[in-house]
Amino acid sequence: MIEQLFHPKSIAIIGASTHRNKVGNIVLRNLIATFNGKIFPVNKHESRIEGLKAYRSVKDINESIDLAIISIPRDFVAEALEEAGEVGIKASIILTSGFRELDEIGAKLEEELKAIARRYDIRFLGPNTFGLITPEFNATFSPFDVKRGKIAILSQSGGLGFYVLDWLQRNGSGVSYFVSLGNQADINEVDTLEYIAKDPRNKAIFVYLEGVSEGRRLLNVLSDITTKVPVIFLKGGISKSGSRAAMTHTGSVAGSYEVFKAAISSAGGIIVENLEDFLELMKLYSFEEPIKDKILIITNSGGHGVLTSDAVEKYGLSLCTLDEETKKKLKELLPPYLKPNNPLDLSVEAPSTVYDKALEATKDIDCTKIVIGEYSPVTSCVEDAKVLIRYKGKSVIGVFMGSDEREAISILTENGMPAFNYPEVAVRVISYLFKQINVFKKPKILEPPTLVRELIKGKEYLKDYEAFKLLELYGIKTPRYRIVENIEDLRNATEELNFPIVLKISSDRPIHKTDIGGVILNINSVEEAVNAYNKLSKISPRILVQEQISGYEIFVGGFIDNSFGPVIIVGLGGLLVEILNKVAYAVAPISYNEAEYLLKETKIYDILKARKRNYDINSVVDTLVKASKIVSEINIKEMDINPLIVNENGSYAVDVRILLAN
Amino acid sequence: MIEQLFHPKSIAIIGASTHRNKVGNIVLRNLIATFNGKIFPVNKHESRIEGLKAYRSVKDINESIDLAIISIPRDFVAEALEEAGEVGIKASIILTSGFRELDEIGAKLEEELKAIARRYDIRFLGPNTFGLITPEFNATFSPFDVKRGKIAILSQSGGLGFYVLDWLQRNGSGVSYFVSLGNQADINEVDTLEYIAKDPRNKAIFVYLEGVSEGRRLLNVLSDITTKVPVIFLKGGISKSGSRAAMTHTGSVAGSYEVFKAAISSAGGIIVENLEDFLELMKLYSFEEPIKDKILIITNSGGHGVLTSDAVEKYGLSLCTLDEETKKKLKELLPPYLKPNNPLDLSVEAPSTVYDKALEATKDIDCTKIVIGEYSPVTSCVEDAKVLIRYKGKSVIGVFMGSDEREAISILTENGMPAFNYPEVAVRVISYLFKQINVFKKPKILEPPTLVRELIKGKEYLKDYEAFKLLELYGIKTPRYRIVENIEDLRNATEELNFPIVLKISSDRPIHKTDIGGVILNINSVEEAVNAYNKLSKISPRILVQEQISGYEIFVGGFIDNSFGPVIIVGLGGLLVEILNKVAYAVAPISYNEAEYLLKETKIYDILKARKRNYDINSVVDTLVKASKIVSEINIKEMDINPLIVNENGSYAVDVRILLAN
Repeated sequence: MIEQLFHPKSIAIIGASTHRNKVGNIVLRNLIATFNGKIFPVNKHESRIEGLKAYRSVKDINESIDLAIISIPRDFVAEALEEAGEVGIKASIILTSGFRELDEIGAKLEEELKAIARRYDIRFLGPNTFGLITPEFNATFSPFDVKRGKIAILSQSGGLGFYVLDWLQRNGSGVSYFVSLGNQADINEVDTLEYIAKDPRNKAIFVYLEGVSEGRRLLNVLSDITTKVPVIFLKGGISKSGSRAAMTHTGSVAGSYEVFKAAISSAGGIIVENLEDFLELMKLYSFEEPIKDKILIITNSGGHGVLTSDAVEKYGLSLCTLDEETKKKLKELLPPYLKPNNPLDLSVEAPSTVYDKALEATKDIDCTKIVIGEYSPVTSCVEDAKVLIRYKGKSVIGVFMGSDEREAISILTENGMPAFNYPEVAVRVISYLFKQINVFKKPKILEPPTLVRELIKGKEYLKDYEAFKLLELYGIKTPRYRIVENIEDLRNATEELNFPIVLKISSDRPIHKTDIGGVILNINSVEEAVNAYNKLSKISPRILVQEQISGYEIFVGGFIDNSFGPVIIVGLGGLLVEILNKVAYAVAPISYNEAEYLLKETKIYDILKARKRNYDINSVVDTLVKASKIVSEINIKEMDINPLIVNENGSYAVDVRILLAN
Repeated sequence: MIEQLFHPKSIAIIGASTHRNKVGNIVLRNLIATFNGKIFPVNKHESRIEGLKAYRSVKDINESIDLAIISIPRDFVAEALEEAGEVGIKASIILTSGFRELDEIGAKLEEELKAIARRYDIRFLGPNTFGLITPEFNATFSPFDVKRGKIAILSQSGGLGFYVLDWLQRNGSGVSYFVSLGNQADINEVDTLEYIAKDPRNKAIFVYLEGVSEGRRLLNVLSDITTKVPVIFLKGGISKSGSRAAMTHTGSVAGSYEVFKAAISSAGGIIVENLEDFLELMKLYSFEEPIKDKILIITNSGGHGVLTSDAVEKYGLSLCTLDEETKKKLKELLPPYLKPNNPLDLSVEAPSTVYDKALEATKDIDCTKIVIGEYSPVTSCVEDAKVLIRYKGKSVIGVFMGSDEREAISILTENGMPAFNYPEVAVRVISYLFKQINVFKKPKILEPPTLVRELIKGKEYLKDYEAFKLLELYGIKTPRYRIVENIEDLRNATEELNFPIVLKISSDRPIHKTDIGGVILNINSVEEAVNAYNKLSKISPRILVQEQISGYEIFVGGFIDNSFGPVIIVGLGGLLVEILNKVAYAVAPISYNEAEYLLKETKIYDILKARKRNYDINSVVDTLVKASKIVSEINIKEMDINPLIVNENGSYAVDVRILLAN
């Protein structure tokens, strides 16, 4: 049971060791130092380890055990887990590596572990994990003591997780939870997130992922959690080579990063783009300094003031305007040659006493003070840092640059205040706190209507008129059309349809009709229609005759993402979708709100509104919602509506291609 | 003379001081420590300073002096400069601040300095400068000794320049030149660049700019220099608030950053986007380690391997493929459970001896080895660093992460090898070395033809038909048109032009015709033309009747940039230019090569080539070249050709708006 994993009353360490540099010893010592319950070292050859009685097997212990930590060579792990099961242990951490991430034999052994766990109803973390830290104990082989605090860390890479832990010791406050997810043979990132998010001691949860185990469940869990505590994601394996590397080392399958970002954002998660931001952002959550989105820059170098102002605008924050009272105070307190501006340039001649006065005058204004102390002939970073700590709680962030910058940063860190080396990094991580997050509730996935089920039954591909039929069944409008196979049909069609019309080849297989000259536009008469028919009928015996729609072209598509399942994609239509790649994704199905958001994201909304056009935007929103229903209700493989043409009267799916996964 | 500034045989220091923490003393000591020529301290009250005979005035020296360094209160600077002029000194460094950057009085004093300098033919650096370092002397008030090396630094901010200097001492090798440009009342960044670039001792020149003094000259000078030595730019003042801050502190006027980037790139300059990259890139130029664009990642953490692979792809580099021989060597040397892949994951259990073997096996392959050493229970960064330095010269870059990372980085730095803290940063700065730089030779700016001069004479705005006329004089095609003022004219026009036609109001002032309903498209008959005329003639008595062109819409514009003068802009046409903002800039006039480059930059090239379209791309290139001639030859204020429509037959300027700066 996952409860026993996080809240055990007693722990057995199978593979406890007397050798101080062995994993089985380091974990034991970390537990002795932190865990208040009973600890049972298990070792076939020793009778006492680190002052505790050791047992030959968990079977010899004869007391109730909640959690078994296993650190023995891979060939013996299954047997150990089996024994744990036999004595009724319900949770395990398998530190041993050499399973799925290593080779075929390891993969088989891992399957065996899963089978044993199922048989005995055991939940386990790992294998190939660096271990677990909770507010109550440290079951990792970290060689250093771990500071406790409010930052939870989940990592699919042990080494990277360990580095983050190490970094946080030196640069931030402590951890609440640290979970090295390992191979996730049983417990995965969603189980962990769901469980630890219940603990109100977390101020933020930082997650390093390489693959997503259960995308849909992750989104459900996440959208609940993010209303209470921020969850920050760093995704590895976003490139082709990176995802190959990820597969080698944890066996996870990396999905498309664009879909990942869209999905996680729509559930309220925060995504950072690199490790540096992931770490530096922890500083802001580590400490209690109140962070505002208006910035006052205090500096002793004009150049840094300029670059920091640039960064403030670049990252969507703003400079605060100094009110008259503050300006007056500054004029009173500062040397007469300094101007009360923002950035507040104290000049290279400013000793730390001038910083003190600047902060005294501005401490109570409602903005974040980014205070840049550059080492200069008249002041040192350390002297400035000593001034800054007196203004703790006044939204003060230190940036120290120059010879003694490290020492100055440490002074702030030790005093519970965030400090940085580059002003741009400070601004960038602040901006993450104020990114607008749009959380969208997902509609339920329904069963497809009977007519739809009949239409698609047993098919891999829908013919054009079948695809149009499918869209119509979902209420998506298409231009009026006829399928013709001879001149007489054609003449009848031209009487029933309004000019201008389009003639297209009607094929049984998915092809790019335009590429093979299979589309003729702007047909305004029967005569032109006959000419066009004669041309096209050489390529295909069946011809689609369609009323021509004018308006703005949009691309709407759908596909199945490896991690999140059915996804809808929308973008500028026609050629632009391929060349400009201005598209937005969303996990299907979507709500009206999310559909509207996608149109804004891709700027289609602006384009449709521009120059007093009266295009029917609501019809596009409606079509997107319906297309997302199709994608999620039936087993599509790929769907392209390209173009969807919108004008004053509505939106029309002019061409559509549907591949099914039957 | 600028020669005396950089290569003086003797230097006078006006304001030399006995007080060890005063600028006038620090500079003197820095000179004594570095300068081989004669040094003359000047001070009204002292007879000896720092062991040298001091003089009351330069007039008392009676020896030839090349350079006067001035560090006295601002009110006395002009007098001192005048005296320097009187005794024939031809170069000066004015360290004193409080001029244009401070207030009106300062600005006047600065004008006075310029006048004196002109009178006596003196070239001077400053005022408000931190000073100058050359390979022969240090004339700054740097409180520390400055390591000499191959990196040249030019900075428009003294404080920022000082930080860069300080940083380079600790993280890179030394400087060849350091020029704090100060207020640039006389010598500016172009003079300095032009001069110091002649010295072959520079391996790279790093420039921090807030404003551009002489844009056109900068480009000329730069395009010569960059063929010999890389010049790296960091631009401050790119945001509205940032440029205000820049104005306050150095008085420079910040131009548009997009134009800056386009201009500098076209002259072969490298632009970095933030201070961190500016600094970290110095590491690569500081040392002799050969850097390749193919990367081998060696790591003890799979997660770092994944993230680094991601960065390699993100920044346009590539992973090297290991050949069979190298794989064989790796298999021989490494423990059997490690796979010879790239990233080469040595696993968390790797001690530094395994790094040694990995490097031994790969040292001779032709790629950059990014070696990530994460502090772990079995190895420390320092131990790994000691291994790495044995492979100096083998394209090895260290990345150290964990408790002792700083010490490890220092070990490499001291041994002349680049080392970083984040793998992503290492990859990013490497990518700058391999960015494709397209240097374009600018055509000469010619005088406009007589007919053009006559057409634009005395005008602020060209009427539509005048603007069409101007385009035609430059050889840009326009659709055939007639101007009509009554129904009869209209009927004649419809006979002379081919349907479909467009009717537009023909206004004397620049307006957005579409916005006020002043354009009617798709007119296919005389009757429709008359209807349209009747509507439009209510808005304007003069109507433009134009043949309607179909094809792809492009936007071509021109304007005057504050720093670089006439600029041409090209982008996706119609609405997209405003909403997607997919545009490219170039300083006008441009060559055919540059025009083609702009089309590729904006993806217009791809769009015109896509789906076997046969659009006349050459005609667009030709039109861009001609439009750039217009922009540079006549005094335009603004020019918009929107749209320029291209089809199989050529490119046509369908609408044009020209404001003149007469």
